[in-house]
Amino acid sequence: MTEAEFLAALRTLPLHEGARDLRDDCALIEIGSETLVINHDTMAEDVHFRPEADLADVAWKLVAVNLSDLASKGAEPVGIILGHSLGGNDLQFVKGLREVMLAYNVKLMGGDTIAATGASTYAITAIGRATHKPVPSRMGARAGESVFVTGTIGRAMLGFEGQSGHLAAFDRPFPRLAEGRALAPHVGAMMDVSDGLLLDVYRLARASEATIALDSEKVPVADPSRRAELLRWGDDYELLFTLPPNREPPVAATRIGTVEARGPAPLVLDGRPMTEQQGLGYQHG
Amino acid sequence: MTEAEFLAALRTLPLHEGARDLRDDCALIEIGSETLVINHDTMAEDVHFRPEADLADVAWKLVAVNLSDLASKGAEPVGIILGHSLGGNDLQFVKGLREVMLAYNVKLMGGDTIAATGASTYAITAIGRATHKPVPSRMGARAGESVFVTGTIGRAMLGFEGQSGHLAAFDRPFPRLAEGRALAPHVGAMMDVSDGLLLDVYRLARASEATIALDSEKVPVADPSRRAELLRWGDDYELLFTLPPNREPPVAATRIGTVEARGPAPLVLDGRPMTEQQGLGYQHG
Repeated sequence: MTEAEFLAALRTLPLHEGARDLRDDCALIEIGSETLVINHDTMAEDVHFRPEADLADVAWKLVAVNLSDLASKGAEPVGIILGHSLGGNDLQFVKGLREVMLAYNVKLMGGDTIAATGASTYAITAIGRATHKPVPSRMGARAGESVFVTGTIGRAMLGFEGQSGHLAAFDRPFPRLAEGRALAPHVGAMMDVSDGLLLDVYRLARASEATIALDSEKVPVADPSRRAELLRWGDDYELLFTLPPNREPPVAATRIGTVEARGPAPLVLDGRPMTEQQGLGYQHG
Repeated sequence: MTEAEFLAALRTLPLHEGARDLRDDCALIEIGSETLVINHDTMAEDVHFRPEADLADVAWKLVAVNLSDLASKGAEPVGIILGHSLGGNDLQFVKGLREVMLAYNVKLMGGDTIAATGASTYAITAIGRATHKPVPSRMGARAGESVFVTGTIGRAMLGFEGQSGHLAAFDRPFPRLAEGRALAPHVGAMMDVSDGLLLDVYRLARASEATIALDSEKVPVADPSRRAELLRWGDDYELLFTLPPNREPPVAATRIGTVEARGPAPLVLDGRPMTEQQGLGYQHG
C-alpha cells in the first residue's frame, strides 16, 4: 500500500484537531496561551542512509530534518525524544547527536532503546514552541501571493553524488530555524522542502486548494545544467513560502512563482499544467 | 553496547529538566499551569512481535504500552503520533489502531511513514496531560512505605505460550489509566511493570536510592507453580507503587513488600539481597 493510501486509511481514525487532518507537517497542541508544535521523523538504514554511513552524520541529519519541520512552523525547539535501535556504532551516533544539539541549543527529553535484529532505525520526536499565531501551515496560500524559496536547491543531491563542496549539504543539512521564525508572522503558507521542490510546491498548492505557477528558471539551483533533476531530488530543507503581492521577504529568498486561483492542476510548471505528482519528487512506499 | 551503556552516553548530552536525568519513563514539559507527559515506545518485528503476528494486535499493544507509561504518571491521554513502516498488512494495523484508540478515547495527532526494506518497526509517541502535581516518578519511594502492585503478574507470559484465557493479556494488554489517575495524589513512587516485576522493583528501589524488601509469595501470579519465571518475564503493564505506612490503596492492589533505608542491595528478595539486575527480568541489548 502506498503512503497516500495509508494516509487515507489513517484519516478514517479519530483525529485530534491539532492533526490538521494529517495534511500538514506537524501536530499542534494548544495549552493555555501556548502552542506546542510536535514532529516525528524516522531514518532507516538502506532507505535514508547507507549501511556504511557515519552514524554521527545520521544523528545530525535526523535531528536537523525534524528541526526543519519546526522551522516551517516558525517554532523554536524545546527538546527531542529519541527512538534508537542499538547495534550500530552507537557512540558515534551520540557524538553526532551532541554536535547537532549544541548547534541548535536543543535538549534531550527522553527516549526508547531497542535491540534491532535487522536494519537499524532511528526516530526523533521534536517538540517546539510556536513563536507566532496562527501557526503557519501548508494550507494558507491565496491567489495573488508570490511564492519564494530560501537558499539553493539541489546541493544535497550533488553531495550525495560525492561532489566536494556539497557533501555537508547532504550529510549535515541546516534547518532554517531563524528564517522560519522571521517569516512566520508574514507568510500565507509555509513548508520545508524535503521530498523535491516541485513535489513540495504541488503539495502546498493542493493543500491550499490553489494553483501555483512556477517559473523553473528562477529557482536558484546548485548546477543549472542539471536543473530538472535538482528540482525533483529533495533533501534540501529550504523553506518554501508565500507572501502577499509586492511584499519583500524579511530573509534571503528568491521569488519563483505565483499563487493563482485553483485550476485543473495544482502546479503549472513553466506553463505546463501538472495534474499528477508522479515524477515530481520522492514518494514513500 | 548495552542499553545501560547507551543511556550513560546519552546522559553526557544536554538534558532537558523534564528528562529527569533519563531515569524515569516519560518526559515532562511544564507549560503555564499544565504539565504534558510524553512517552515514546517502539515495537520491532522479531524483537517485540513475531512476523506472523496479527498487526491489529501489534497496533493495539504498541498504543497500550505507551498509555501504560502515561498511566504510571497519572496522566490522561491527549493524542498519539505514529511512526510507521509500510509493507506489512497496513490495513490490519489501522484496524487495531482504531480499536485501541476508541477503547481509550485517544486521538491521532500525526505521524511519519517510511518504506522499510527489512523488519518492520512501529513507534508511538503518546502525549498526555498530568492530572496531579507533582507528577509521580520512580524516584519517590521512602523508607517505611509499603509496596503494592495491581492485578495479577505473569498472564502475558502464559498468553505468549498460547494458554487460552491468557492470550489477550499478551496480545492486547490493558493500560491501567484509571488506576494511575486515582493513585497519583497518594503514591510515593510509581511505575508500570514492563520488563519483569523483580527487575522493575529493583529499578524503582535504585531510582529512589532505597532498598525494597519483597515477599515473593505475596505477589498474585497467574500460575503459582511457575512463580519464579512469572516474576521475571514482563509485559504485564500493571502498576507498581508505594504508599505511606498503613495507607490503603484507592484501587484494587496487593501489598508485596516494604521500602527500607538504602542497604547494600536495591532488592532484598525473600531475605536474599540482590545486588545485580542479572536474572531479574528482560534487558535490552
